[in-house]
Amino acid sequence: MSTPLRLGIAGLGTVGAGVVKIIQQRANLLAQRTGRPVVISAVSARSRDKDRGVDLSGFAWEDDPVALATRDDVDVFVELMGGSDGPAKAATEAALAAGKDVVTANKAMLAHHGQAIAEQAEAAGCVVRFEAAVAGGIPVVKALTEGLAGNQITRVMGVMNGTCNYILTRMENAGLPYDEVFEEARALGYLEADPNLDVGGIDAGHKLSLLSAIAFGAQVDFDGVELEGIGQITIEDIRQAADMGFRIKLLGVAQLTGRGLEQRMTPCLVPALSPLGQLEGGTNMVVLEGDSVGQIVLRGAGAGEGPTASAVMSDVLDIARGIRVTTFGQPAATLDRIKPARATAAAPYYLRMALVDKPGAMAKVAKVLGDSGISIDRMRQYGHDEPTAPVLFVTHKTTRDALDHAITGLAETGVVVGDPVALRIEAL
Amino acid sequence: MSTPLRLGIAGLGTVGAGVVKIIQQRANLLAQRTGRPVVISAVSARSRDKDRGVDLSGFAWEDDPVALATRDDVDVFVELMGGSDGPAKAATEAALAAGKDVVTANKAMLAHHGQAIAEQAEAAGCVVRFEAAVAGGIPVVKALTEGLAGNQITRVMGVMNGTCNYILTRMENAGLPYDEVFEEARALGYLEADPNLDVGGIDAGHKLSLLSAIAFGAQVDFDGVELEGIGQITIEDIRQAADMGFRIKLLGVAQLTGRGLEQRMTPCLVPALSPLGQLEGGTNMVVLEGDSVGQIVLRGAGAGEGPTASAVMSDVLDIARGIRVTTFGQPAATLDRIKPARATAAAPYYLRMALVDKPGAMAKVAKVLGDSGISIDRMRQYGHDEPTAPVLFVTHKTTRDALDHAITGLAETGVVVGDPVALRIEAL
Repeated sequence: MSTPLRLGIAGLGTVGAGVVKIIQQRANLLAQRTGRPVVISAVSARSRDKDRGVDLSGFAWEDDPVALATRDDVDVFVELMGGSDGPAKAATEAALAAGKDVVTANKAMLAHHGQAIAEQAEAAGCVVRFEAAVAGGIPVVKALTEGLAGNQITRVMGVMNGTCNYILTRMENAGLPYDEVFEEARALGYLEADPNLDVGGIDAGHKLSLLSAIAFGAQVDFDGVELEGIGQITIEDIRQAADMGFRIKLLGVAQLTGRGLEQRMTPCLVPALSPLGQLEGGTNMVVLEGDSVGQIVLRGAGAGEGPTASAVMSDVLDIARGIRVTTFGQPAATLDRIKPARATAAAPYYLRMALVDKPGAMAKVAKVLGDSGISIDRMRQYGHDEPTAPVLFVTHKTTRDALDHAITGLAETGVVVGDPVALRIEAL
Repeated sequence: MSTPLRLGIAGLGTVGAGVVKIIQQRANLLAQRTGRPVVISAVSARSRDKDRGVDLSGFAWEDDPVALATRDDVDVFVELMGGSDGPAKAATEAALAAGKDVVTANKAMLAHHGQAIAEQAEAAGCVVRFEAAVAGGIPVVKALTEGLAGNQITRVMGVMNGTCNYILTRMENAGLPYDEVFEEARALGYLEADPNLDVGGIDAGHKLSLLSAIAFGAQVDFDGVELEGIGQITIEDIRQAADMGFRIKLLGVAQLTGRGLEQRMTPCLVPALSPLGQLEGGTNMVVLEGDSVGQIVLRGAGAGEGPTASAVMSDVLDIARGIRVTTFGQPAATLDRIKPARATAAAPYYLRMALVDKPGAMAKVAKVLGDSGISIDRMRQYGHDEPTAPVLFVTHKTTRDALDHAITGLAETGVVVGDPVALRIEAL
């Protein structure tokens, strides 16, 4: 077992440089733990000349990641370029075709092509591991795939986009409006080049779809994730939620129901004193529930050089140790296609709308809610300068179908301006 | 890979019965995940006739766990008997001598004999896994050994005895004295036959010593753990801590310092709003800190049939999948003997003592503290019916050595009755 494990690393951004640093600085420790040296044979990135704070002189350079992935002196292709298609996918496929194992941090690629990649890997006798793709440094893929393998998983939940959680907690703590905090986050470099990946919930939805596949033995189905971003959340929503003992989180929930696989990544109200409610800033939290184990909560940094590189190394060192687990925890051919289902369980909802300031307007709204079978737990209309009045309702438990029916009805009243905001209240 | 993995299970208490249930009820799921059937060949326990709520008729019975461990039709010996020596150790050694892998939930055995068992296992080409020995269903051994393998671990902390945490939180929430809650816990079956294993911190100390070995590449050194139980904690301590924004937890802390390996399992004050401070009842929490990953927090049930059986199954299924990791994450021969060190970093302390009600008594105490180089942050003497006055101090940061010096000095003043209680205040 003293043959070195040889890596080819494509992508030398923050995470790639972090991986190089760990391998250079911890060589002895890693060899002691795995029983063999872990070395880098070659690297690839867009620009060869950029200073990345690490010494790359000992590694071969490849301009083309596909060439890197298929080199004879590479055992494991480490894909840290990102992007669902393009070079990342081409190089991953080329690596597998050449019989190389793959370690990737690429949630978008796996959310869109995970099933095909898993099938290709297994046919080639290779492994594809992706700990770094979900929740940064938290070893959640391993916890779910291996640590809880004796369980029928009943639910997976989580706050898996640190940027959204930063924005929401910053709005609350500083009392600032969304737009202002969004610009702050951009200035701090917290946002993806396309910010909608973060604030639209897409990035977090990618992650949820990967955990769902493992948890429920399902083919990855990102298109089946009900997605809603945080862009419509106002500071008033946050304050109202706080008044009622809740905080607003972009919360992922996945569970298998009689009607199919429910996957949603939407802003929800969660109890302020629950573990998820207490999560501040860029930290991630994943809650795994199994029939035997009950509830396991994992918390840690969801992004950043060190945490993400730590997760990449976990996969690399597994391979060095001879740990070979199928991509989604069971053979790709046995993963079921499970049809997506909307959230079926009834829940209370928080509902905000802008009402025209006219006699009879409230009566119309109340009638629509009643006709939709929705009963009101509490209601508040607060002082305002605008021509419309902000009105909030908290409903008793109701279904999403009844709520959608009501929202359609509200639009037809002519007294509600714009789209109402409806946020599910999760009792955790 | 379709050869069945055949288990011999010794010990059919709550956990053993839980393991049998999972294997019987989830056979298809487990086979799908591991690629091979997991079956039970034989079982062993003290009484053959007891009704355990599971059907054992399909398994061979052995009265002698050693005979079970060495059967030809057993690949993995699952040791769930407990006890640091005696039958558990004899059967484990026999299993390894016969070339069987071992899965155990036995923290006491590994805390005392872990190094020898790891050496024997590696010489025989076998693995010994013990996920269930630490923090019940939380996959913390796996997280530390594999998930964070790329890190230099800097600190391990945790609340790892659910019974102690139950007692402390119950005292606080119900305002009840220690003795009363202790009896409640006994009536509820939460206490070990020898309650000192729980409330004396021994059980939690065993667990900490196992995590330390993995984290710091050290030979298990349970004797090096500074142990202090919760028996001296009063409801007044809990109230005073709460007033200052703290809660009292039986907290394990392990870190490698320049002077050696610091391991302590002692009651500490932790910030009430920190993840550890918020932990209620029988739940466990482990905090792992690494140079790359930062802080990872893991939370879940620390005991009980389902959670502990889930952890046992994690190890069994790893073996079924061909995952073979050395007992403490690196070859036993490379584990260092690291000398134990007392906590060196200065910290504030909470100090409670019973003072005789005489003029000049307080002046004597204050002089001793001053002479020991300890400065006082706050102090309180409260109303009392006893002949002695309860007096509390919170010190500014001081070392354990200075504190011990002061405690010796206090005993010599003649005005302090009994031993002062000193609890470290951990800023997390």
